[in-house]
Amino acid sequence: MKTITIIGSGNVATQLGLALYSEGFDVVQVISRTLKNAKKLATYFQAKASSNINDLIISDIVLIAVNDDSIAEVVEKIFQHQPKPYELKPLILHTSGTCSCIILKNKNWESGVFYPLQTIKKTQYIDFREVPIIYFSDSKNTLNNIKKIATSISNKTVVMNDEQRVALHTAAVFTNNFTNHLIAIAQDICKQNGIKFKLLEPLLAETFEKLLKKTAFNNQTGPALRKDTKTLKKHLQLLQSSNYIDVYEIMTKQIQQMHLHKSLS
Amino acid sequence: MKTITIIGSGNVATQLGLALYSEGFDVVQVISRTLKNAKKLATYFQAKASSNINDLIISDIVLIAVNDDSIAEVVEKIFQHQPKPYELKPLILHTSGTCSCIILKNKNWESGVFYPLQTIKKTQYIDFREVPIIYFSDSKNTLNNIKKIATSISNKTVVMNDEQRVALHTAAVFTNNFTNHLIAIAQDICKQNGIKFKLLEPLLAETFEKLLKKTAFNNQTGPALRKDTKTLKKHLQLLQSSNYIDVYEIMTKQIQQMHLHKSLS
Repeated sequence: MKTITIIGSGNVATQLGLALYSEGFDVVQVISRTLKNAKKLATYFQAKASSNINDLIISDIVLIAVNDDSIAEVVEKIFQHQPKPYELKPLILHTSGTCSCIILKNKNWESGVFYPLQTIKKTQYIDFREVPIIYFSDSKNTLNNIKKIATSISNKTVVMNDEQRVALHTAAVFTNNFTNHLIAIAQDICKQNGIKFKLLEPLLAETFEKLLKKTAFNNQTGPALRKDTKTLKKHLQLLQSSNYIDVYEIMTKQIQQMHLHKSLS
Repeated sequence: MKTITIIGSGNVATQLGLALYSEGFDVVQVISRTLKNAKKLATYFQAKASSNINDLIISDIVLIAVNDDSIAEVVEKIFQHQPKPYELKPLILHTSGTCSCIILKNKNWESGVFYPLQTIKKTQYIDFREVPIIYFSDSKNTLNNIKKIATSISNKTVVMNDEQRVALHTAAVFTNNFTNHLIAIAQDICKQNGIKFKLLEPLLAETFEKLLKKTAFNNQTGPALRKDTKTLKKHLQLLQSSNYIDVYEIMTKQIQQMHLHKSLS
């Protein structure tokens, strides 16, 4: 049974930890900046908890699931903490969609990337079988080891280098975060105008259904595409005193540009 | 059996015409700027086709399903064509989400709005039972007549005045057109980088699933929300030579503003 130390206690640390634990990995320690959060997550695994990286237990796998901006700092601390060669080299992984795998590179350990391509919330159960795990290492042997971990929790595992993973992550931000934000705006517009968003759910469902059948470009409809200037003007009037006018303008311009560009090419 | 003249031959004219026809309405004429399109749609109903509004047959219902920008022009032509009072006042409807109902007002006919809240394509079958029909008239009697038509094709009919309908339509543009465009961008980023978009389909599905359970605001994750500056920078680098950098920047700023605003309020 492989032992794991999890660094981080956020959405990814929590759900990935639970998925690995339920597949028989032995989570022995959780380290998080906030002790309370570390303890809360560690409780699931009957693991140790700490807020101090100097308490680090070098397990078979050290899973760094922290903000991208903090990964380098964590790695530096691990190295300062135990710079000597280990008898058995641990496998250090980070879960970032964008951070290079080079950042982890060190002769004292194996290292690689283990990026779950999904929107993950601490509080919402997620079936990892359906979550693509994008993994990478520049060592063939390590790549095989990571693959074993990935396939133990997911049916969809893909090797991808740093450059492609950044592109994939950027596309994921458009697919999830930005899309989700547009719906947050739509929900706010409804609220401001005494309309129940429920009325828009069939439209939301159809939007999604159509995307599974055709490419988004071919599904486009609406006033931007039709260049209904009167309609666009009325929508802008409605949004005048809101924060959303810039988004409306840029999305409208972009839709028109993309369709002009493709019709010319 | 009520007779209908359809003005327009686009997405809404086509699918709404088919839905009404299948519920027993007698579509007697299709008028469209392009005769070929009028004929193509008219064929479904064994109806007459014309590209000249002077050929207009004043049916029980005249359904104006043209670009918002063209509605006023169509109404003016109808009036010029037959300015005299009819024995039985026809019911003139437009299908716009934004255009005022006042534009149709005339003592010679009844008038109102009949707006199907859905993304509609000529070429894709749509089940109108599930499409909310937003309708309006300032005459109570007319309102009842429109309701009968609406309930004959849809299980979801809602009376809504002009102001609310504009807000609903604006929210619909965010929900569908803009969301769809973000996915078009994501698909283009994937294509440019040799990645199959299929890999992002579980993320797209989860994004949608979560929206049916919680408000979008509470579902937000990702680098903008976490303020992962390194990640944001890498994504912007990737997009540098593309048309998408403005969208990325404004959406990121907006997500951060909305969450700051709500956390302060």
